[in-house]
Amino acid sequence: MNRTHNNGELRITDVNKIVELKGWVAKKRNLGGLIFIDIRDKYGITQIAVKPENPNYEIANQLKSEYVIYVKGTVIERESKNKDLPTGDIELDCIELKILNTSLQPPLIIADNTDALEDTRLKYRYLDLRRPCMQKYFITKSKITQAVREYLCSEDFLELETPILAKSTPEGARDYLVPSRLYEGEFYALPQSPQIFKQLYMIAGFERYFQIARCFRDEDLRADRQPEFTQIDIETSFLNDTEIQTIVEGMFKHVFKKVLDIDLKTPFRRIKYDDAMNTYGSDKPDLRFGMELFDCTNLFNHIEFMDGVIKGITVKNAEHYTRKNIDELTNLAKKYKAKGLAYLRYQDNTLTGSIMKFLDEAKQKEIIDTLKLENGDLVLITYGKLKIVQISLGALRSFIAKKENMLDPKRFEFAWIVDWPVFEWSEEDNRWYASTHPFTAPKDECLQYMKTNPEKCYANAYDIVLNGYELGSGSLRIYNQDVQKLMFETLGLTDEDIKNKFGFFTEALKYGTPPHGGIGMGLERITMLMTNTDNIKDVVAFPKTQSARDLMCESPSSVDEKQLIDVHIDVRKQ
Amino acid sequence: MNRTHNNGELRITDVNKIVELKGWVAKKRNLGGLIFIDIRDKYGITQIAVKPENPNYEIANQLKSEYVIYVKGTVIERESKNKDLPTGDIELDCIELKILNTSLQPPLIIADNTDALEDTRLKYRYLDLRRPCMQKYFITKSKITQAVREYLCSEDFLELETPILAKSTPEGARDYLVPSRLYEGEFYALPQSPQIFKQLYMIAGFERYFQIARCFRDEDLRADRQPEFTQIDIETSFLNDTEIQTIVEGMFKHVFKKVLDIDLKTPFRRIKYDDAMNTYGSDKPDLRFGMELFDCTNLFNHIEFMDGVIKGITVKNAEHYTRKNIDELTNLAKKYKAKGLAYLRYQDNTLTGSIMKFLDEAKQKEIIDTLKLENGDLVLITYGKLKIVQISLGALRSFIAKKENMLDPKRFEFAWIVDWPVFEWSEEDNRWYASTHPFTAPKDECLQYMKTNPEKCYANAYDIVLNGYELGSGSLRIYNQDVQKLMFETLGLTDEDIKNKFGFFTEALKYGTPPHGGIGMGLERITMLMTNTDNIKDVVAFPKTQSARDLMCESPSSVDEKQLIDVHIDVRKQ
Repeated sequence: MNRTHNNGELRITDVNKIVELKGWVAKKRNLGGLIFIDIRDKYGITQIAVKPENPNYEIANQLKSEYVIYVKGTVIERESKNKDLPTGDIELDCIELKILNTSLQPPLIIADNTDALEDTRLKYRYLDLRRPCMQKYFITKSKITQAVREYLCSEDFLELETPILAKSTPEGARDYLVPSRLYEGEFYALPQSPQIFKQLYMIAGFERYFQIARCFRDEDLRADRQPEFTQIDIETSFLNDTEIQTIVEGMFKHVFKKVLDIDLKTPFRRIKYDDAMNTYGSDKPDLRFGMELFDCTNLFNHIEFMDGVIKGITVKNAEHYTRKNIDELTNLAKKYKAKGLAYLRYQDNTLTGSIMKFLDEAKQKEIIDTLKLENGDLVLITYGKLKIVQISLGALRSFIAKKENMLDPKRFEFAWIVDWPVFEWSEEDNRWYASTHPFTAPKDECLQYMKTNPEKCYANAYDIVLNGYELGSGSLRIYNQDVQKLMFETLGLTDEDIKNKFGFFTEALKYGTPPHGGIGMGLERITMLMTNTDNIKDVVAFPKTQSARDLMCESPSSVDEKQLIDVHIDVRKQ
Repeated sequence: MNRTHNNGELRITDVNKIVELKGWVAKKRNLGGLIFIDIRDKYGITQIAVKPENPNYEIANQLKSEYVIYVKGTVIERESKNKDLPTGDIELDCIELKILNTSLQPPLIIADNTDALEDTRLKYRYLDLRRPCMQKYFITKSKITQAVREYLCSEDFLELETPILAKSTPEGARDYLVPSRLYEGEFYALPQSPQIFKQLYMIAGFERYFQIARCFRDEDLRADRQPEFTQIDIETSFLNDTEIQTIVEGMFKHVFKKVLDIDLKTPFRRIKYDDAMNTYGSDKPDLRFGMELFDCTNLFNHIEFMDGVIKGITVKNAEHYTRKNIDELTNLAKKYKAKGLAYLRYQDNTLTGSIMKFLDEAKQKEIIDTLKLENGDLVLITYGKLKIVQISLGALRSFIAKKENMLDPKRFEFAWIVDWPVFEWSEEDNRWYASTHPFTAPKDECLQYMKTNPEKCYANAYDIVLNGYELGSGSLRIYNQDVQKLMFETLGLTDEDIKNKFGFFTEALKYGTPPHGGIGMGLERITMLMTNTDNIKDVVAFPKTQSARDLMCESPSSVDEKQLIDVHIDVRKQ
């Protein structure tokens, strides 16, 4: 009672063969006595015909959606062919039919188009995952990981494991804690990334490490975040930043060819962080379209309320933008803390807009010439603090591109964003934070500014971005213990902090640490972009909700008191 | 300042080339002015010669063990060649030498032979891992996982992830708990295995799942256990037990060929659980040698104190066994609860031993004939309850084989142990437990005994064993909801237990669950056997001690009070 074929492979050339299939009842139709059954598995769908005189007719009649069946039959040519189905030229004339298992009526339709609520889909995830589009996401994800491994192993990388029961570290997101049974009042922590362990692998001399590694962050979730996620994690010794980037480019080239049959052009573009912010208003610019930011401080700084930096973008063919549309854009800019949004339209060779009263004829001509305006252009201008101007225009740029269908899902525009600032000032905490993590190597020429002018320090750090998403973040690491100490001090860590939190690691740096660097890339993001979905839950088989709950397992859940006693904890009284 | 070669690849054919190397100073010798440096990386060691007149002489003189260096030099033929080193025919005449990083004096010798205490090795694990033998373990482990993936992907398996933040389940070992921040008093649990999730993947129609998955058990550790370990985890739909076993055999065949260049013979032997216990006194018999258990109840049950089942083994060529040796064996048997150990020697065609006074001449002849004794044989006999007799003789069999060097590390004797009992009786708890887990499918013909005679129930379960180790455990799973319910009931779970603990899973079984089954195999065990080490810590890069502590990171550790408040827990007052 084996199957001879899957449900996606029978063709007209198989006619007259006797075959055996297994799978789920996708559909059953009773056409005036003749019963048609669509049998489905992950490979496809095949039609089965059972005539009233067939001894299996009674069984066929009992079948309901999602029953698991075995069928033996003769492949015959269909009378009315189905061009939409790879197996649409044939059907099976049923010889034998068996029910392997029954099914209740599923609470959601097992088809690409479903109107089920997300909660229902998550609760009955095992049914949701039966939908062919979901199957495709995970087939692609598996292919991506295998292609990554193939490439990295061919480049002499070793796949090496790092602990999940690790240690709580400061800096960065909140840790998930695991109380210890053997050490009362002590805790393991789930790793936010394998960062320290992969650096230790370099100190240990493994030279080329990778891992497709689970990471954990107890943060409030956004649509593209999950409490646990998977990172393609790489670390190398003795290579410079360009050499590491070249390996990653080779990896993506291989993955895209293998999974999507797309030839990526390498090397990828390199854009300095400051330039990306200036030109695209984003540190993860979408490069599938232009609409670049331009500086127009000199054009407009005669207008009193437009202080600070003045920058703009030009929307082409924007005749259809109504006052309401522009209000919407203004609100979006304000969401990013812009003081306001001025606009100018150029239509019928005439300039109109919100700041016309400040623009005499000469100024108007200067604007038209300088900005090389064409009829139909809409210029959006904002002003104030540089970073706010950049980010709010960047947000407008992305919003408009999406709205105007300028985002070709079949184009993949990679870039490296390089030369990141080492530090970020937190107004809130009144202190410097590490932009990425405290192991990122500042550029040699910046070391002199570490303590005096942290804002002048740029790092040997590089992000890889694709179509407006950050895929991953990497850097050369600090391998000199004195530099590491300087870094910790700039971050305001006391000697005791350092000793408690990173003691063993700063110790490790003293024993012949090689120059090293690497990168970590989000597997879910990569899969989302390669499968063209925008919901991370589509590429995580058993995801948590926005509030970190597994609706299927009903986890987290309460546990037996004995389990708490075993690990010496109590639920805290309010 | 790149390297052109690694430190293991230069040969006599490279003489006169100018090359660049990077690595660690493995050794420095000053031979009357001429300095020899051994530079090491994971590929090997190359010798560098620095003459006193060399401008780099001063730098060479500063070098100490484990400094990280860059060297440029001309490959020259050595005067005295080192046959033990692949690069032993050549050395580098130094042109340029740079120190990339310094090192403190390492607290352990970076060489295969180390006399460092285990605690020192674990504390300075990054140095311990620099030892060439340790590097080899992890290179092999990485090769094994890639070969596993290659094979399974070629067999149309998908590598699919399962959550680490899962749900606490009853039955089995203690869970590691993770307190939830968003749900006060609730907990995630780290999975003991992906069992339920991989079954859900089958219900979801993925048909062929695998994962190299991290598992967690908060148990008291033995030498071959770690709190977290890695499982090669497989699940399939629509296949029977033999078909699943054939896939696993194919996998091992591929892995052994690829990693060790060894051709395994398949199919592996199949031994029923009851037969394995009867013949080898073990459910994971080492098949590299014979010394099989035999039943001799009829030969000896005239001796009053030898009640119950009487079984024995014959040790060949055992002339050298002293009374002291036999006492040692007796103590070992007693450790396994044997009532006692009788022995008989056959030497110079004469029988002697501990029970001679019960054996008249006819009996002696009967024994010699029945047991086909040869001069030099030592017969060890024990008696009592079957299981105790089996296990204690099994332990003796293993002990003697090891002592007598009967275990060839280059032989790999695989077998499947099949037809396991579904249930195991716990004297302690006065109840039946599932021998493996409660999802194991009983054989159809045993279903009738489930409630009345659980001891008569055998399962479609199979362990794969190798050289006395259990590598993995698998089974066909229950896919019928009624059988699953029967199983839970036999295990004494109430309806409420079932609902609370497995509610969603029993619900899932109702929606068209296909027949399915799989296996989980320990990656560490496999790696241990393939690298011929007997300490699991040798194949776990950053292991925990016997008391679950990471001596390097000093984890577990205390955490900030704020972290505990965030997740609503308190350390329990004594």
